[in-house]
Amino acid sequence: MHTLTFRVRYSDTDQMGTYYNARALEWFEAGRNELLRDLGRPYREWEAEGLRLPVYEAHIRFLGTAEYDDELRMITTLSMSGRARLRFDNRIEQAASGQPVCEGWTEHAITDTTGRPIRPPAWLVELAGTGD
Amino acid sequence: MHTLTFRVRYSDTDQMGTYYNARALEWFEAGRNELLRDLGRPYREWEAEGLRLPVYEAHIRFLGTAEYDDELRMITTLSMSGRARLRFDNRIEQAASGQPVCEGWTEHAITDTTGRPIRPPAWLVELAGTGD
Amino acid sequence: MHTLTFRVRYSDTDQMGTYYNARALEWFEAGRNELLRDLGRPYREWEAEGLRLPVYEAHIRFLGTAEYDDELRMITTLSMSGRARLRFDNRIEQAASGQPVCEGWTEHAITDTTGRPIRPPAWLVELAGTGD
Amino acid sequence: MHTLTFRVRYSDTDQMGTYYNARALEWFEAGRNELLRDLGRPYREWEAEGLRLPVYEAHIRFLGTAEYDDELRMITTLSMSGRARLRFDNRIEQAASGQPVCEGWTEHAITDTTGRPIRPPAWLVELAGTGD
Repeated sequence: MHTLTFRVRYSDTDQMGTYYNARALEWFEAGRNELLRDLGRPYREWEAEGLRLPVYEAHIRFLGTAEYDDELRMITTLSMSGRARLRFDNRIEQAASGQPVCEGWTEHAITDTTGRPIRPPAWLVELAGTGD
Repeated sequence: MHTLTFRVRYSDTDQMGTYYNARALEWFEAGRNELLRDLGRPYREWEAEGLRLPVYEAHIRFLGTAEYDDELRMITTLSMSGRARLRFDNRIEQAASGQPVCEGWTEHAITDTTGRPIRPPAWLVELAGTGD
Repeated sequence: MHTLTFRVRYSDTDQMGTYYNARALEWFEAGRNELLRDLGRPYREWEAEGLRLPVYEAHIRFLGTAEYDDELRMITTLSMSGRARLRFDNRIEQAASGQPVCEGWTEHAITDTTGRPIRPPAWLVELAGTGD
Repeated sequence: MHTLTFRVRYSDTDQMGTYYNARALEWFEAGRNELLRDLGRPYREWEAEGLRLPVYEAHIRFLGTAEYDDELRMITTLSMSGRARLRFDNRIEQAASGQPVCEGWTEHAITDTTGRPIRPPAWLVELAGTGD
């Protein structure tokens, strides 16, 4: 589990005055990134070792508004989804009030550099904590 | 049903060489926009009349790659989801080969300018073709 | 000279109600792209031949607002800047009224795939119409 | 003068493997934002008081690459440009090596909520340190 605190940028807003929906997926990415760094396995190293984690499926529920400069807190967790996919769950809330902003998940294929699915390495399965 | 053809911009790509996942939601938005214009009810007019359609939930399945400058075709359809929400389904494929790129949907609350859910106007229900 | 007509997306707006400033550079890219296609030399082919055109310098003047769904017209022109750089000039205006939205330019190095500057090929110099 | 350290997100990259050019302007915005907060005058308060700072002109020089997950350091400074405009200068470099990534500036009109230029309040002129 990883917690990341960040602020809504002006570029994240749209004319409705809250964050534009697609930005949630960029925030989720930042959450995945910092979670993997925290676990001692930055995604950059995965790529250097020839692994790729393309997003396979994504789901988002938009639960509340977040205005420019609001401080948000994102909680990211990691698990396996079946034997061949990695799943990250994200929840974003207002840092001050705890009011929910959005939540969702992304499922990732585990592939080589050509996009061909591969058997997840043992360290990855262990990392995801499934003990499969 | 609306069909929109467009090209992948350089700004849509990431270092994996295909489109960045969050861009799918921006494309879906363009599909909704042109569908509503085609139906004779541009979303801009909805906003002028005090209606808002904030995204409530979104789902995306990433089915294939799309490289810079690839011509893509997006098919967008509209329906009601229950009595109070609007749903758009999007499917994007390679224009030349028909190979799938991604598909998904967004569900939208129907609210006034303060974000309070309202009963959908009759013309909207008719537009969505449910005849509820 | 190339003219491209497009609409402001919701994702292009920010809470000020006009387009977010960085979007101008994405629009300029679309202008460059379609200009080169029109000239019979799509940029994709340049990359396939081992050429790259990284942006070296960019300048933008923001001249007027553009709201969601406004139809805009962008005029893009191409020239050499000295013997070693390519320059694109962009001007964006409201399609209906001709009111200026923004204008600017980007200068591009001409490099190989490793980022090393190369002597521009003869066809490129000719394309840029300088006859140097 | 304000220093902000941040990492290149995957969404900031393009298929050339470095950051996409328009992202520099989003980073500059984050720099302005944190500078003003540091000065005790968060931009959010400006907006609440009826002031707006629309970008009037922007200039960027792209000086070096920055890859996914690189840690970057941005230095932002503030000054008046003439009597009626505010100017921010930004410089971004690799945090570890100090290698330049990009630099540039944005000039901002000072307006009311309708976009009409106004005489800058005394506190703002003082903030910008010009003593005009």
